[in-house]
Amino acid sequence: MLEKFGHGGDLLTAAGLYGLEAGQFVDFSANMNPHGPPDAVRAVLQRYAETIGSYPDPAVRGLRRKLALHHGVEEGSVLVGNGAAELIDLVVRLLLPSEVILAQPCFVEYGDAARKCGIPIRTVALAAEERFALTEQAVRHTMANMRDQGIATGTALWFLGSPNNPTGQLIDAGVIRLLLAEGERVVLDEAFMDFVAEEKAYSFISEAASGYGDRLIVIRSMTKFYAIPGIRLGYMVADEALIAGLSELQVPWSVNSLAQQIGEAVLDDISYAERTMAWLKEERPWLTQQLEQLGLDVAPGHVNYVLFRIPRSFNLKASELQQLMGERGVLIRDASHFEGLGEGYCRIAVRFRQEHELLLQTLREVLAGRKAGGR
Amino acid sequence: MLEKFGHGGDLLTAAGLYGLEAGQFVDFSANMNPHGPPDAVRAVLQRYAETIGSYPDPAVRGLRRKLALHHGVEEGSVLVGNGAAELIDLVVRLLLPSEVILAQPCFVEYGDAARKCGIPIRTVALAAEERFALTEQAVRHTMANMRDQGIATGTALWFLGSPNNPTGQLIDAGVIRLLLAEGERVVLDEAFMDFVAEEKAYSFISEAASGYGDRLIVIRSMTKFYAIPGIRLGYMVADEALIAGLSELQVPWSVNSLAQQIGEAVLDDISYAERTMAWLKEERPWLTQQLEQLGLDVAPGHVNYVLFRIPRSFNLKASELQQLMGERGVLIRDASHFEGLGEGYCRIAVRFRQEHELLLQTLREVLAGRKAGGR
Repeated sequence: MLEKFGHGGDLLTAAGLYGLEAGQFVDFSANMNPHGPPDAVRAVLQRYAETIGSYPDPAVRGLRRKLALHHGVEEGSVLVGNGAAELIDLVVRLLLPSEVILAQPCFVEYGDAARKCGIPIRTVALAAEERFALTEQAVRHTMANMRDQGIATGTALWFLGSPNNPTGQLIDAGVIRLLLAEGERVVLDEAFMDFVAEEKAYSFISEAASGYGDRLIVIRSMTKFYAIPGIRLGYMVADEALIAGLSELQVPWSVNSLAQQIGEAVLDDISYAERTMAWLKEERPWLTQQLEQLGLDVAPGHVNYVLFRIPRSFNLKASELQQLMGERGVLIRDASHFEGLGEGYCRIAVRFRQEHELLLQTLREVLAGRKAGGR
Repeated sequence: MLEKFGHGGDLLTAAGLYGLEAGQFVDFSANMNPHGPPDAVRAVLQRYAETIGSYPDPAVRGLRRKLALHHGVEEGSVLVGNGAAELIDLVVRLLLPSEVILAQPCFVEYGDAARKCGIPIRTVALAAEERFALTEQAVRHTMANMRDQGIATGTALWFLGSPNNPTGQLIDAGVIRLLLAEGERVVLDEAFMDFVAEEKAYSFISEAASGYGDRLIVIRSMTKFYAIPGIRLGYMVADEALIAGLSELQVPWSVNSLAQQIGEAVLDDISYAERTMAWLKEERPWLTQQLEQLGLDVAPGHVNYVLFRIPRSFNLKASELQQLMGERGVLIRDASHFEGLGEGYCRIAVRFRQEHELLLQTLREVLAGRKAGGR
């Protein structure tokens, strides 16, 4: 399977599986901004030969200052990491919660980080019929169960994606406020929040920087929106004392200097951000509609990827669809590996119109063949 | 102090301390190959804009294959890390030894990694009068003490630098064989081994790949020899089962794709390696001799850095010398922060002749002033 290492975007594995060169695929399996890196990245790369010979700033001072300004928080509330993955790992290792609570399906790294520390996982199941929303009712029910089982308030840790991956759903602010009011500890993974038009209404970055102690942490990625996953770059915002503790646990020079320089450069590229938002506003609804016309069940969402389900009538598993598409040079994510999703679920990134047309054409061929075969 | 974050090479802190721009210093405080990155690095950077938009290979397959070939070991025995620092951290976290044994003075990260896990540290003191060599006698004495105190064989972990930083001393192969024969667990940090002319006689990479289980691990850095600390790149060689366990603990995509590509490219540059070895053979003895002529006590060594002591007669601490040199644009490492070294110890990198002449001239001025003042 393409997700041999647990994730999409693995072109090398794809090449081995489907008999094409890595460069020959159109990749819908990783949720990357298809605009590619902003122009500023090329400029940084041209200069980088001059600074690769020096150690990275161990305290990531320039980028932290810039991120703090960008979000209107204190520098001491910001920690930069070697990708969001490192920050997820650090949080679990520092807080060592009694258990980790996941609203499934969700990003696999939350659970993996918990398992590495031997921490038990409690699942809140998100339901397709509720559009995969995390409801107040489900949260109250889970907290009641925890209290019944003797899990004291504030000892567990909720890991919540907002928007959630792979469902694309945002978490209602009221649900997060409820958790905080009840004294629970929450990590909000906002890795895809910059793709959300109403970002300000949903992000909890300001709250995370203002006095919640270890009860509210927001994690962000810079690799999806700015299309720079190769170099690894994420950050988190939380209480200053907590950030200091996490920073001590971090490996020295964890964030390479190219990532630091690129992070500083791309934040200034306002027109790239505007272009991205305009493209997504146009392209996501169009893609969604087209997929529905093919007879696929598309989940509603707010971001640069789309979750859909192959109806039973096609008699086709996501893994089979992935294989058939992969052989034709189109990589999609088999989302049935996400806990809580059945074998018919797939996830695809939103890309450009021409690529969508290729995707749709390939889907049409594959699905038509299956329908015929299924008769 | 310059080592605000525990290490040399921090030009940003230097600029703040000494009132010069980061680019105005000649940096002897970090142990980097002064030849700068091999030409291949520039070529990789020029191409990198094309691949920064894809995820790094999570399994680092290309570079691991190349390193395995380079050292004549199996690919499964090689793990690549986000700098050697990450690998040190991973080893401690996976093995969770009863105690960590350090031959001090040594690189601070070994102890820091142990402290983060709450693991006690036992020190074997290296003596200046024994040229900072780790002796069989000291090892036997330490093991006897451990047994007396009920520390079972093979539960502790020895972290040994070979060549050792900051002393530049190699560890005698007999001492390492003794530790292995006694059933102790050893991590050999060979971060500077590629600077050693008789590398083959001292490196334990082949042994580490052949059946010692968790009892022998060799860590290597690629950032010193190839002058690429900005991008972070290290690797380790050990038993395949142990490597698999360490790999599972590693954060996904820990090694960025630029580091992977550069690692593959520089290994092919044989002429860079030859140039480096020829330069060091010439320049190290010359620098050593010149320092001695200034009246400084220079420790013997085999690598691209030199440890020296300011004799008491100068009435000058290393921290004071560092300040006086820093104000004059020359960064040296105050080595008195290394446990086991007194306040007169400094460490400097071997660089080019012209820079050495600047260093020596500046030293002459500063030391002359102090001698005059001391009368």
